[in-house]
Amino acid sequence: MLRSHKCNELNKANIWEKVRLAWWVSNRRDHGWIIFIDLRDRYWVSQIVFDPENATVFKEAEALRSEYVVAIEWVVRERPAGQENKNLPTWEVEILVESMNLHAKSKTPPFELDDHSTEANEEIRLKYRYLDMRRKKILDYMKFRSKMTTYTRNWFTQRDFLDVQTPILATSSPEWARDFLVPSRLHAGKFYALPQAPQQFKQLLMVWGVDKYFQVAPCFRDEDPRADRHAWDFYQIDCEMSFVEQDDVFNVVEEFLLDATNDLSDKKVLTQTVNNDKIRENGKFFQMTYEEAMANYWSDKPDLRFGLKFVDLTDVYKESEFAVFKSVATSGWIIKAIKLENQKLSRKEIDELTKVAQKAGAKGLAYIIYDDAEEGGKKSPILKFMGEAEISEMEKRLEPKHGDIIFFSADEFEKAVKILNVVRLALRDKFELASKNEISFCWVTDFPIFEQDENTWKIDFEHNPFSMPKGGISDFDREDLLEVRWLQYDLSCNWYEILSGAIRNHDVDALVKAFEMVGRDKQEVMDKFGAMYEAFQYWVPPHGGFAIGMDRLMMIYVDEENIRDIYAFPKSGKAQDLMMNGPSSVDNDQLLELNIEAILPEEEDK
Amino acid sequence: MLRSHKCNELNKANIWEKVRLAWWVSNRRDHGWIIFIDLRDRYWVSQIVFDPENATVFKEAEALRSEYVVAIEWVVRERPAGQENKNLPTWEVEILVESMNLHAKSKTPPFELDDHSTEANEEIRLKYRYLDMRRKKILDYMKFRSKMTTYTRNWFTQRDFLDVQTPILATSSPEWARDFLVPSRLHAGKFYALPQAPQQFKQLLMVWGVDKYFQVAPCFRDEDPRADRHAWDFYQIDCEMSFVEQDDVFNVVEEFLLDATNDLSDKKVLTQTVNNDKIRENGKFFQMTYEEAMANYWSDKPDLRFGLKFVDLTDVYKESEFAVFKSVATSGWIIKAIKLENQKLSRKEIDELTKVAQKAGAKGLAYIIYDDAEEGGKKSPILKFMGEAEISEMEKRLEPKHGDIIFFSADEFEKAVKILNVVRLALRDKFELASKNEISFCWVTDFPIFEQDENTWKIDFEHNPFSMPKGGISDFDREDLLEVRWLQYDLSCNWYEILSGAIRNHDVDALVKAFEMVGRDKQEVMDKFGAMYEAFQYWVPPHGGFAIGMDRLMMIYVDEENIRDIYAFPKSGKAQDLMMNGPSSVDNDQLLELNIEAILPEEEDK
Repeated sequence: MLRSHKCNELNKANIWEKVRLAWWVSNRRDHGWIIFIDLRDRYWVSQIVFDPENATVFKEAEALRSEYVVAIEWVVRERPAGQENKNLPTWEVEILVESMNLHAKSKTPPFELDDHSTEANEEIRLKYRYLDMRRKKILDYMKFRSKMTTYTRNWFTQRDFLDVQTPILATSSPEWARDFLVPSRLHAGKFYALPQAPQQFKQLLMVWGVDKYFQVAPCFRDEDPRADRHAWDFYQIDCEMSFVEQDDVFNVVEEFLLDATNDLSDKKVLTQTVNNDKIRENGKFFQMTYEEAMANYWSDKPDLRFGLKFVDLTDVYKESEFAVFKSVATSGWIIKAIKLENQKLSRKEIDELTKVAQKAGAKGLAYIIYDDAEEGGKKSPILKFMGEAEISEMEKRLEPKHGDIIFFSADEFEKAVKILNVVRLALRDKFELASKNEISFCWVTDFPIFEQDENTWKIDFEHNPFSMPKGGISDFDREDLLEVRWLQYDLSCNWYEILSGAIRNHDVDALVKAFEMVGRDKQEVMDKFGAMYEAFQYWVPPHGGFAIGMDRLMMIYVDEENIRDIYAFPKSGKAQDLMMNGPSSVDNDQLLELNIEAILPEEEDK
Repeated sequence: MLRSHKCNELNKANIWEKVRLAWWVSNRRDHGWIIFIDLRDRYWVSQIVFDPENATVFKEAEALRSEYVVAIEWVVRERPAGQENKNLPTWEVEILVESMNLHAKSKTPPFELDDHSTEANEEIRLKYRYLDMRRKKILDYMKFRSKMTTYTRNWFTQRDFLDVQTPILATSSPEWARDFLVPSRLHAGKFYALPQAPQQFKQLLMVWGVDKYFQVAPCFRDEDPRADRHAWDFYQIDCEMSFVEQDDVFNVVEEFLLDATNDLSDKKVLTQTVNNDKIRENGKFFQMTYEEAMANYWSDKPDLRFGLKFVDLTDVYKESEFAVFKSVATSGWIIKAIKLENQKLSRKEIDELTKVAQKAGAKGLAYIIYDDAEEGGKKSPILKFMGEAEISEMEKRLEPKHGDIIFFSADEFEKAVKILNVVRLALRDKFELASKNEISFCWVTDFPIFEQDENTWKIDFEHNPFSMPKGGISDFDREDLLEVRWLQYDLSCNWYEILSGAIRNHDVDALVKAFEMVGRDKQEVMDKFGAMYEAFQYWVPPHGGFAIGMDRLMMIYVDEENIRDIYAFPKSGKAQDLMMNGPSSVDNDQLLELNIEAILPEEEDK
């Protein structure tokens, strides 16, 4: 072994031991009469001393530069009094060098590796990812990722979940997102596909009899990238169970996420804001239906780290003297309001906020400021139009206190909630209502099964059709199909959707019926989902499950907004591996063997 | 939850508890006046009793058939004396049924699911994998696989190895095996490749400063399948470390494999047969060079569960009166022998063995039987040609005892060792010299760097050129390049190669020099291995590592010779997923979007 210890291991117990340490010079302090270096490795730092009495090695030390890779050898000694650095685990000791082996110098790196220097251009950083990774932030992420996957796998396997590796060369199902295809060499004109998720495999495992399945599963979607989506390979905590109902799935998820949040992250506090009251997490996550989420937050992944829930006032103004509100309330449109608690906004700031609302389609932004400075304790351009009873009922619903501000939105439903959402998020950001160190989980349930095309009025599936209707299979007999809901659920965390899942429809006849309801037929089920169609005719148990976006959950845990930085070797925003120069051209022979031909873009005119 | 307990959980403590169990009917015994079923799940079996007093449910029970999925509800009671079945963990109790919910029947399955019935045709089994998996063998394998991956990951992460997920959409390196390609949608005419191994990524992690990396890594090679090779996705225990020498790598591997073998398999005994002596494993695996392995076993993965090492006798017969041996010994060819201990072979059996040898190219099979029944205690057709001194020296080397048989091979090197190998393996199988329950690991080291083409005499790399020469970089200056050896090693386990690895060549100049030695140039290094060429110029530490074929190791642990059965969802021998019907045709639009065209085979004349 070219080293005897790691750089965080030495302490007083090692004094007078002969040791070998190795790795980078992270800091060199040349006092002329003595040279110190900090020798750094993945674990920490040890202080190394070069004494001029050993002239050879002292001369070598003079030539050392940051990041050089060295192995040094000699004896541990106590640090002179006053020179201890209690920030280091090795603060009591230093190593006096007898000999040194310079393993590697470097040419000048293309960017500063200093943790504190401004980040270099992302393309350069990705091309030299192995250098970028030397920054403590990225190394810490990789340590965290390793810890998180290990933690997750142990949590599930300790609870009898079988970790099953499902195929990575799977079959195309272009129903959902776009597939990555892999041409088959042995079967000309045919293709494997990388799995968008192991959905069908995990359901087939239930038919098999694996009652609890789990996998940190690599998934693949050929989508254009975004800041929170690494559109090539990404990982999900994938899970399926037999004989469960929705609450059983929720229990597993809640237990896991509470444990993981507590055990993996020491700064994150679980909270949730129900109505306007922030409460400490009690072990159960708040639940709301999709309809409620849209009506109260205009989001299927509401950020519940803070309040400002939309309060409906439509009925209050049905008889109002205030013509604008009355006409909205009586025409089938809506009036909703949110309450900002105990904050001040200047006239100018209200104007700015109004502009934000207008950008989202509002004509203006009505408000009431509850402030003693004004007559009656309230300041508002619209108050004078309202009757006593209306004000009283509105205040009963919103419970404003001194220092609060209420904002109104009156419009057709879609527009009204969209505007309030924009105002809500602008207020969150302005007043920092949502702390990075808070985590709020929220279940969103009861997704609609069907949606209607605005133009053709044709009804089709809103989500994938493998979930169980809430009322069971007979739900498909209802007249009002658009009202039918799935046993399908998402979990939001802060403003990310981090989980989605469902209790599955395991009844083949019901599956066929669901397709028929939207004018598709049995043959399509058999063609596209042949394995499941066949398998579900053999002893299939009721089952359900979920998948957690592991990468996004990690982003929340480590406070990183760029998903690329939480992978060891990410692709660029243009789908390239800039370090390995991929995707790359390949020999034509390789393509011929795979029975394909590349279609190259026509050369542009010069 | 549709069940309250698993089928292995109930015992006397649960008596009079009301429970809900669910899953398969695995055995139904109808005594007319009472019906029993064994209810089975992934965990075990519980006995269920239907009493005719409850007429409704008794009638339902009469209609039950094997494998039906039911949920039953009622009370746990003690088994009547004399009806206990101590083979079950639930032997003390049975469940009296009050109500039953039949969740799923089945159409007639395409083959018998009985664990003991003859295995159905593999194609049918793969098409209905979810039914095939109901056989206990396959379920047990999947449990073992989950346990083994969990164990492995914990073993390494507990020892500071970082579990890093390397990209699955990587870049083509057709140098080694055949790549699976993935066409890029955003970059016309360019391709990703699924990684044959994370070789370059793990070395780049070393440049980064991850001193200990580990991953249960999915790997992909587009090779034709074999019984011990699943030629699509397979898994390796992939590992790399900085500042290690060959012995350090060996220590990690030995510690891991000793722990894993002891902890995962209760029947496997670690042994190794050094020369002809079988010894109990002592924590260090036997090592031999590639040259020794070929000379003594004609195998780079020798099976050391038993002896029969080849003993060289060439020099013994240089002056022999025995013309055949003398001419072999003096012409540069060789004479080797193996000793079979304490076994009897009839004349007929020796004839059969001779035929085996002849099939491998031997003219005959010379032998000496040490047997008191004959004159002088030896029986042999060739003994009479040998002089006393020769016999004495031969016996000194082979140490035959009463009951042993010695076999000779005299030929040119390649042929002589090939013949002896065939004889050795035939004897192993005939006399069951190698027990399934023994595991013998053996390091094979010092692989040659270069090989010479028989026809062109051109020298090229024997293995991949990223390893360090044994004598360091100056080895490339030697005249006798064919004698230069890598710091490269394999580990054999029984007759499988289960690991390969190397101390890497981390010096860019040496890498270029290695290429130049075989008439290739720097530009090729830069073109094909650009990332490593560039990265190795920035502070690269010395490093080395290994990859263990996890699937093969599991095959040994569970005594399975068909690699397909140790995957949950294997491909067939013809590279197809018979269950999901993959690879499949895809829409032309999908191909166009990926900038490729399929080349279909021409239709055959009708």
